[in-house]
Amino acid sequence: MALLVVGSVALDSVETPFGTRGEVLGGSATYFSTCASFFGPVRLVAVVGEDFPEEHVAFLRSRGVDLAGLSRRPGRTFRWSGRYEFDLNQAHTLDTQLNVFADFRPELPESYRDSTHVFLGNIDPDLQLRVVEQVRSPRFVAADTMNFWIASKRPSLLQALRRVDLLFVNDAEARQLAGEHNVVRAARAILSFGPKAVVVKRGEYGALYFSGEEVFAASAYPLPELFDPTGAGDSFAGGFMGYLARRSAVDHGVMRRAIVLGGVLASFAVERFSVERLRDLTTDEIRRRYGEFRRLTHFEDLELDVLA
Amino acid sequence: MALLVVGSVALDSVETPFGTRGEVLGGSATYFSTCASFFGPVRLVAVVGEDFPEEHVAFLRSRGVDLAGLSRRPGRTFRWSGRYEFDLNQAHTLDTQLNVFADFRPELPESYRDSTHVFLGNIDPDLQLRVVEQVRSPRFVAADTMNFWIASKRPSLLQALRRVDLLFVNDAEARQLAGEHNVVRAARAILSFGPKAVVVKRGEYGALYFSGEEVFAASAYPLPELFDPTGAGDSFAGGFMGYLARRSAVDHGVMRRAIVLGGVLASFAVERFSVERLRDLTTDEIRRRYGEFRRLTHFEDLELDVLA
Repeated sequence: MALLVVGSVALDSVETPFGTRGEVLGGSATYFSTCASFFGPVRLVAVVGEDFPEEHVAFLRSRGVDLAGLSRRPGRTFRWSGRYEFDLNQAHTLDTQLNVFADFRPELPESYRDSTHVFLGNIDPDLQLRVVEQVRSPRFVAADTMNFWIASKRPSLLQALRRVDLLFVNDAEARQLAGEHNVVRAARAILSFGPKAVVVKRGEYGALYFSGEEVFAASAYPLPELFDPTGAGDSFAGGFMGYLARRSAVDHGVMRRAIVLGGVLASFAVERFSVERLRDLTTDEIRRRYGEFRRLTHFEDLELDVLA
Repeated sequence: MALLVVGSVALDSVETPFGTRGEVLGGSATYFSTCASFFGPVRLVAVVGEDFPEEHVAFLRSRGVDLAGLSRRPGRTFRWSGRYEFDLNQAHTLDTQLNVFADFRPELPESYRDSTHVFLGNIDPDLQLRVVEQVRSPRFVAADTMNFWIASKRPSLLQALRRVDLLFVNDAEARQLAGEHNVVRAARAILSFGPKAVVVKRGEYGALYFSGEEVFAASAYPLPELFDPTGAGDSFAGGFMGYLARRSAVDHGVMRRAIVLGGVLASFAVERFSVERLRDLTTDEIRRRYGEFRRLTHFEDLELDVLA
């Protein structure tokens, strides 16, 4: 089993009510691969510019991320800057400089083509398709997308969705993609587009999973300190896919544990800026917080005598 | 064990994207007592005008609600009218006519004064205090409040909170009351005001329960059809308190089941306008949906071999 991610490796500048950070390590493939690396190796496909700090490359390598697919191109690295108000569910983009990312045409190294699990980070759906077509026989493909692609490249996105086993979207994106306000009916509409499953991410409220008749509601971990939501969605996907790639059989129980682990990794990622919290995170902490998620949400059967 | 509720009995006019209803049965004490009545008898304290339809009185009586405390006064019944957009989490009040409710001075019939469980619906905190002082030895007092009282009668509200075991608030109210955006820290601040527990209601996302070190996150039931959110909070409180009044001992497990039952009753209430769905609701349906809430949220322990 081998896990592949395609996405961005970026330098982020972030303002939140709790502070600011300039040009720190970010990008969907960064968060994803760092979080997935707690479960096993990850193969990364992305592009950076000549200015990308070597220390970040060293960090990803130290996490066991295979960087054969990380190409360094002439020019500057992709930069994103954004601000969060007190409502940390909502990112306000201040500036996007695509730089080398503008001409990103992902090419998989030959050594990646036997990947079994694939995460298509939030990039142009034509590029997502290009990646999945280079994988010989993927067993499980998950994808992320965003409002921009839903609005501007809908036909390509729908084509990509037919190759995807699971789609990650937030609730606004689910509504936009389905043209339906009710989240349950939006999820069912998305399933009719091709994916076998959909995870609707709801920020600080958790996530809903839909697949056929199966519905799972996962709570987010109520954090007293939440510094920077950047990368929460990709951390979620990283925890989810990292775990899934370790399981030979997939059933509803495995999917539920994968979703909870997504929430666990996301809950750590947002505790500090950038990937700071993930640098010293231990597998014991992951296991402990998984247990806290269970204690947080579980309850017993109802007694027989309580209804009149 | 005997359960008492003080609150409003009203005629509501509601617009939602799914239809409109004029002058239908509403009010916090109505929703609360109807939902609590599935667990046992409820004593109601409220006021209505001369125009209040006898059929509504008959309905409440048919649900086993003790109406010794329902006074009928000269004048018109309290009327509320509101509109919901597609975001059903947010009510827009169009008109409030207090009518007889403006001079409401709750007086408990002697037969109510031995009540063990008390729910103080969303009324002036001075009146909430007045009610709780008339109960000889309450075992468990819960209260609801709203932004209007938090802003305009804060000292009275804080005084009432010292007599309250549990406060129900939505997340915006929790933030406003605590002066703190983070919901975990807001809840802790509220606990420092007196209540032993706080339930933060989050609409379609569920609810969080805080008491000492205990935290419980309850998901809402993802409904494909949601017609009218009016009364969801009071239905939640009704399911919660109705169950609690049937339990002689209260521990964390009981509180968790109470919260889930609150969510169960609220999930039914919003399926139709007014209390329509509650009219033919059965205890079997309540028990079945409780089971669905468990299946919706539970997951197994993590395998030992999955973390690298």
